[in-house]
Amino acid sequence: MGGDLAPKQVLDGVSLLLENLPDDVILVLYGDKSSVDLSILSHKSVEVVHTTQVIEMCQHPAKAFQSLTDSSITVGFQHLKQGKIDAFAGAGNTGAMLVGGMYTVKTIPGVIRPAITTMIPKEHGGYGVMLDVGANSDCRPDILLQFGLLGQLYAKFMLNIETPKIGLMNIGEEEEKGNLLTQATHKIMKETDSLNFIGNIEGRDLFNDKADVIVCDGFVGNIILKNTESFFRLLTKRKIKDEFFDRFNYEDYGGSPILGLNKPVIIGHGMSSPVAIQNMIKHAIGLCKSSLIEKIAAEFN
Amino acid sequence: MGGDLAPKQVLDGVSLLLENLPDDVILVLYGDKSSVDLSILSHKSVEVVHTTQVIEMCQHPAKAFQSLTDSSITVGFQHLKQGKIDAFAGAGNTGAMLVGGMYTVKTIPGVIRPAITTMIPKEHGGYGVMLDVGANSDCRPDILLQFGLLGQLYAKFMLNIETPKIGLMNIGEEEEKGNLLTQATHKIMKETDSLNFIGNIEGRDLFNDKADVIVCDGFVGNIILKNTESFFRLLTKRKIKDEFFDRFNYEDYGGSPILGLNKPVIIGHGMSSPVAIQNMIKHAIGLCKSSLIEKIAAEFN
Repeated sequence: MGGDLAPKQVLDGVSLLLENLPDDVILVLYGDKSSVDLSILSHKSVEVVHTTQVIEMCQHPAKAFQSLTDSSITVGFQHLKQGKIDAFAGAGNTGAMLVGGMYTVKTIPGVIRPAITTMIPKEHGGYGVMLDVGANSDCRPDILLQFGLLGQLYAKFMLNIETPKIGLMNIGEEEEKGNLLTQATHKIMKETDSLNFIGNIEGRDLFNDKADVIVCDGFVGNIILKNTESFFRLLTKRKIKDEFFDRFNYEDYGGSPILGLNKPVIIGHGMSSPVAIQNMIKHAIGLCKSSLIEKIAAEFN
Repeated sequence: MGGDLAPKQVLDGVSLLLENLPDDVILVLYGDKSSVDLSILSHKSVEVVHTTQVIEMCQHPAKAFQSLTDSSITVGFQHLKQGKIDAFAGAGNTGAMLVGGMYTVKTIPGVIRPAITTMIPKEHGGYGVMLDVGANSDCRPDILLQFGLLGQLYAKFMLNIETPKIGLMNIGEEEEKGNLLTQATHKIMKETDSLNFIGNIEGRDLFNDKADVIVCDGFVGNIILKNTESFFRLLTKRKIKDEFFDRFNYEDYGGSPILGLNKPVIIGHGMSSPVAIQNMIKHAIGLCKSSLIEKIAAEFN
């Protein structure tokens, strides 16, 4: 039921995926069962859990998550916690998805704060990641350090980058540049052995090869992400077709994982198209198969 | 002597400007007199002040400004302070230009911190401004409130927008959204009568018509600015020509004024081309003719 275009676009995305669903995957849909076509309902790898409530995009995340106990998000997270499903993905209320994750499956022991992680297309091919892009508006240096570790593990095990380069988003390359937060963060990132820290990067370095993992607080990351999305929209509106800029399309990767939770959780774009939904579910399957969560837990243990 | 391509590109920019210099303007150049062509030297509206030192782009701003007393930046600011010139513009070391302004002509009484201000091309025509884009990495709510006032006056008297709309860069439209700084800033911006505050805007709103003046701290603004510049560079590199995106070209307005100082000061891009230099000087002339500084001083009095 999640997203501005649900449930139709979500179900169309499911239909797309079902054409090529791996044999070892079962898709569990949470929502209004009466809206699901027979072609999906009757599929051998699909289960539908009927829910009667919906957390709207504008509702207060924590309040809605707790009061709407039969909403698709709340029931989904309960099932995730109980082990009835292995991963949960949704294009609904971002805050409710975040709160739901933290209330039910909880953060991995040792992780201070989970981070919403987005893919960044690189000019010379491939992807990097940027985190956090919205879960934590105010951060401390030790929290940003952990974002670096979370991103490093994602880049290694999901993007198959052997030794990911970790960069700190800042306003100058030199160590002493930045605000109080990034100055202090630079210091501890430089000192730790567990991070392949390459130093500060700047706003202009998002798409080049300097860093595979870009670390920032959720305030800065969210603004960068939305600024970048607005470029993509402007290009699309102006009918500019270009191989590189086409890769800005969030549909390609479908969603942003919340890293640092005990289970795989992915948040989709509120405007998710069927292609985006399909790729969001594939992304969730990839998270399960990579055992990324177990690897993060081992690192933070 | 300022910028990566000085003095050649700077002098080429001067030559361009001299073809159409208004009669009531005298251009005073600071730098190595031997590098100036006779065509410029002999021009009736040009004076050259020979200086023997240069503050390099990589030097520590405050130290260099104080020790290199015969540098083009230091001598220029002394002349500005003494009233020998009415405005000072340079494409050199940004920090030294900022420090120079604060040490010599100083901030307008009542202004807590000056702000570097950049032009933002709007999708449907015209420009807006964003400030601060790099002078103040850590800000307080009262400082951001003042940035709103400074930007409002610039938009009114330089961009001729009768009632400029002031927006606070944030990560959600709702009042309670944001980090501690923007939450507190929103509150005082909403309460003041002197600001035409339209509320929060987001990273996606940079180029639309929601706000004419975008307020943010220098850390966030610098990252947005460089992110935006990297888009322009990528488009240029990929040979994508487009009427709107062409307006991203900083050459068109030539430089970023430091608002809040007692005299007009403009910082040019380190890579300024002759066209950018020409437009930076025109921008400085515009600042003088608009009496913007006097209007800011009256507002803060």
